[in-house]
Amino acid sequence: MSSKPHQVKVELGSRGYSIRIGTGLLPRLGRECRALGLDSRCMVISDELVAQHYGAPAVGSLEKAGFTVSLLVVPAGERSKNLKTAGRCYQQLAAHRMERKSFVVALGGGVVGDLAGFVAATYLRGIPFVQVPTSLLAQVDSSVGGKVGINLAAAKNLVGAFHQPRLVLCDLDTLRTLPDREYRSGLAEVIKYGVIQDAAFFAFLEKNLSGILAQKPSVLAKTIARCCEIKAYIVGQDEFESGARALLNFGHTVGHAIEAVAGYGRFLHGEAIALGMVAAASISVARTSLPATSANRLSVLLQRAGLPTQFVWHPRLRSRLWDAMVLDKKVSRGELRFVLASDVGQCRFGLPVPALEVNAALDHLAGRPPSKP
Amino acid sequence: MSSKPHQVKVELGSRGYSIRIGTGLLPRLGRECRALGLDSRCMVISDELVAQHYGAPAVGSLEKAGFTVSLLVVPAGERSKNLKTAGRCYQQLAAHRMERKSFVVALGGGVVGDLAGFVAATYLRGIPFVQVPTSLLAQVDSSVGGKVGINLAAAKNLVGAFHQPRLVLCDLDTLRTLPDREYRSGLAEVIKYGVIQDAAFFAFLEKNLSGILAQKPSVLAKTIARCCEIKAYIVGQDEFESGARALLNFGHTVGHAIEAVAGYGRFLHGEAIALGMVAAASISVARTSLPATSANRLSVLLQRAGLPTQFVWHPRLRSRLWDAMVLDKKVSRGELRFVLASDVGQCRFGLPVPALEVNAALDHLAGRPPSKP
Repeated sequence: MSSKPHQVKVELGSRGYSIRIGTGLLPRLGRECRALGLDSRCMVISDELVAQHYGAPAVGSLEKAGFTVSLLVVPAGERSKNLKTAGRCYQQLAAHRMERKSFVVALGGGVVGDLAGFVAATYLRGIPFVQVPTSLLAQVDSSVGGKVGINLAAAKNLVGAFHQPRLVLCDLDTLRTLPDREYRSGLAEVIKYGVIQDAAFFAFLEKNLSGILAQKPSVLAKTIARCCEIKAYIVGQDEFESGARALLNFGHTVGHAIEAVAGYGRFLHGEAIALGMVAAASISVARTSLPATSANRLSVLLQRAGLPTQFVWHPRLRSRLWDAMVLDKKVSRGELRFVLASDVGQCRFGLPVPALEVNAALDHLAGRPPSKP
Repeated sequence: MSSKPHQVKVELGSRGYSIRIGTGLLPRLGRECRALGLDSRCMVISDELVAQHYGAPAVGSLEKAGFTVSLLVVPAGERSKNLKTAGRCYQQLAAHRMERKSFVVALGGGVVGDLAGFVAATYLRGIPFVQVPTSLLAQVDSSVGGKVGINLAAAKNLVGAFHQPRLVLCDLDTLRTLPDREYRSGLAEVIKYGVIQDAAFFAFLEKNLSGILAQKPSVLAKTIARCCEIKAYIVGQDEFESGARALLNFGHTVGHAIEAVAGYGRFLHGEAIALGMVAAASISVARTSLPATSANRLSVLLQRAGLPTQFVWHPRLRSRLWDAMVLDKKVSRGELRFVLASDVGQCRFGLPVPALEVNAALDHLAGRPPSKP
């Protein structure tokens, strides 16, 4: 039984769109796409794990609404987010004669959303797409805001585009089949929103974590909707990431580096971001007067969510972590810049941090004293 | 000795830019980029034929202006415009640690401009790029307007983006090393501008063709500048090709199909477009009352420029020509649409044409009577 879904608007003028959050939404996918006035032909791109649960319902809903639907299933996992798989998607779009007004439906987690979104952004120089995120991470973060892309061997998301979806449909029911570890990984981004923008929401998370972990629909819908509101607000301020949008990268400079260096797959994205947030908080204590008690609240909440707060890395990895950070996109004129917190709910972006303090934070993550320079 | 260059502005608000046309411009590339306030690091992407003449001057000019420059040379020819070469470019950009404010210089013809532009459009979700077109086709057409992309096996330009350059530098001197056949191929697009928008310019071309063929600088600069003005005007009306920009596709529906079916390489792009324009003119005579004398003026001018006006194709190619036209982007709701002329300088776009008349035009191209349906 579905209650009335939450709705969040992303205000981007002619590129604006709605995010709907609730239960029982997937069976309404076709009707929603029809209401958008989308053309008759579409391709659903999904991965093999998600497709086995939700491929048929998604395709069925679209067909029932009168669309001509093809389903393309890619292997599950970050490894699919590459140029080769994108090439396969392009070929399939061409083989199914998708036209400029045809559309792509991304049905899956962040990998599928980023890959399918990038393909939609570049096929025929851009065709419409709809996000149906089925992981918590994708529902609260990657499906909203139009950042799409693929990985290179050198680093994640090095190739991409800004391409806003026409609709984001977050069906809470799809989270039930998500492995527990991935669900918890998504909570890292949820917690991030509290840190960067909303102390009251952070307190709400502290109070309601058990309900969220139990996927209690009312609490979960409220949580996801608030994350989407914050993300929509920030994206509305800065669609192309020339300013405030950088706030969303809290924890991501170190987090992305850990993902790259530990080998894609050892840490889930949210787990790496949890570590990155612990590192950013420890830099924040030193540089932006974040109270140690606030840094501690963050670590405690992450731990309660089952997320890692320590990463025992071998000292010889230091240079590789640095290489990865420098290659990441948070570099300006060769200098590493961080999002740092002065308190929970109060962050600033673009702050240069000396190498010494970055290293101290990396050592802190490993639970050892700062190494001598 | 260089005279004052022509300058054409592309009016696109914050994405607007200048096109400079003249002699002696390449040695000023570095200064021009410096004047744009571009960041210190850049990569020049060129092909092996162009790089042997202009690679060193381009790199030298940029270095003299204080930039840190890498040069990436790809094989010459349409075959480089694919996903694999794009992947190589991305890897090199990452290896040279190009950042968000680093920029790409596309030094070459249309293939290099489209490829390097697409790479710039998608690396780190888009970094600045500068066009230095060295072929006539690229100077009058592909370097202006921001359409960038690569080919799939299925068809040309199926993957791409809109990404406006920060500057277009058309140095007439670089045309001297262009093979004669490629130079004449570029004239097809020059003639197209007369047909779609400017009868007086068409008459100018009829009158001055010998000077243009001899690359007389004053006549040539005026010719290229007028083409760029027309293109800039149309792009300024319709950056993302939702309307008037389709005018630029006069001759391209059939032209692209001939390119694809004859095998990339048999016809140069402009040669195929010349054939496509003859086909479009013959449809125009039937459907939009183009005077037969005007269609004839077009054929005569194309022939004087050394361009083909007949393509003797085997009847069994008909279905492949159709497949290619349908796969091309000038399809709306499954129906082929053409740009058609009612007279020289007067065209309309988006006109549906019955299959019978398209077939008649294809037969006309082959110099045979229309086949029975």
